[in-house]
Amino acid sequence: MTIGRLIGVGVGPGDPELLTLKAVRALERADAIAHFAKHGHVSYARAIVVRHLRAGIDEMSLLYPVTTELPKNCAAYRDQIRNFYDESAATIAVRLDAGCRVAVICEGDPLFYGSFMHLHARLAPRYPTEVIAGVTGMSGGWSAVGLPIAQGDDVLVVLPATLPPCELERRLGDADAVVIMKIGQHLAKVRRALERSGRLERAIYVERATTADAQIRPLIDKPDDCAPYFALVLVPGWENRS
Amino acid sequence: MTIGRLIGVGVGPGDPELLTLKAVRALERADAIAHFAKHGHVSYARAIVVRHLRAGIDEMSLLYPVTTELPKNCAAYRDQIRNFYDESAATIAVRLDAGCRVAVICEGDPLFYGSFMHLHARLAPRYPTEVIAGVTGMSGGWSAVGLPIAQGDDVLVVLPATLPPCELERRLGDADAVVIMKIGQHLAKVRRALERSGRLERAIYVERATTADAQIRPLIDKPDDCAPYFALVLVPGWENRS
Repeated sequence: MTIGRLIGVGVGPGDPELLTLKAVRALERADAIAHFAKHGHVSYARAIVVRHLRAGIDEMSLLYPVTTELPKNCAAYRDQIRNFYDESAATIAVRLDAGCRVAVICEGDPLFYGSFMHLHARLAPRYPTEVIAGVTGMSGGWSAVGLPIAQGDDVLVVLPATLPPCELERRLGDADAVVIMKIGQHLAKVRRALERSGRLERAIYVERATTADAQIRPLIDKPDDCAPYFALVLVPGWENRS
Repeated sequence: MTIGRLIGVGVGPGDPELLTLKAVRALERADAIAHFAKHGHVSYARAIVVRHLRAGIDEMSLLYPVTTELPKNCAAYRDQIRNFYDESAATIAVRLDAGCRVAVICEGDPLFYGSFMHLHARLAPRYPTEVIAGVTGMSGGWSAVGLPIAQGDDVLVVLPATLPPCELERRLGDADAVVIMKIGQHLAKVRRALERSGRLERAIYVERATTADAQIRPLIDKPDDCAPYFALVLVPGWENRS
């Protein structure tokens, strides 16, 4: 009996053309695919790859039981989300035990702040596993802007917007280039931290970069603090160009 | 008369299968391609895309006049390298003025510590310009290792190995996940900074990830300090998994 194979497939930041050749081939060869989504929403990763899915392929929608309804540090959130990843891994393991090649499609890059990492931690020790790197959301963002992000001796820091305000401010003041991820409900806080660290003027707000719905503008020109979870703020380095 | 178009094409970390569909189409439609290389060496980016180049396509090899022979902060180095980028931009501008689509092929992602940025700064203000994001070398690295690099509230810091030892040590001690780029002749210094910041045990040495010549091992198991310029050291975050 053949043993299955788990494949984490990075599908890039949104433009279906930013799929890699390797990702396309993995999808063509997969027996089953899995993707994460919020209840009541279509998987964004699935929309990126839909033209490469075989008709009738075995599909698993892994639906988060909670996302932002509960604070992340409360026990109820942690229990529910841990159970969800355990159950998701078990669902996939059934296919792997049956010898299937299971492709888990992941926005951006699978091992860079992705939900796939929770499946990888649970399944990679037990099954042959492969990860196909993808173009990250941040690369898609600065490329869409045409914004050289970091050069030479620049230090680039990636900050989740979920960090406390003082921590954001401190780190913004101690980096050449900055990417702030997972903006969502945190934009007002991020804006204040950028202002207090003197970085607001250079900050670019980026939403759905590389797609037809892209919203890109200097953050100081954005009139409100409404932002989706996947929005980014970019602060370019390379200030002393030669 | 049609005006030309400059296209920065990210070609990924090394595996030709990690080219994006968009990069392939840009190469197929290009009238000319340009690539950077060290004197006496073949362009690594060119080797990645060679199967997609049309026979007889107009090719420009942009050969660095110096790389590590002179210290980066000396005037002679700065002058030579500035002149080189000026002349490279002028060479490409001749094709753009003639209405050509010129694809500059770039290892990894064009705007992430890439030489293309020097052309972009000189030409994007004057010509229609497009940047096609690519899979970065660091994504290729952690995917090849199967190493979840950053999750949740992790702060990820990208450090050029060229930084002073005390600066490397300080920043290593103030990050959850770290990528150290451009290792080259700096591996002994990097190793000491990792040791002094208590991060040596988790550090992974990565060379030519995603290619047949890949060298990947815990840094503590690497017996020497010889490393190519493009080698990386990865220190994963996500220490408190749930």
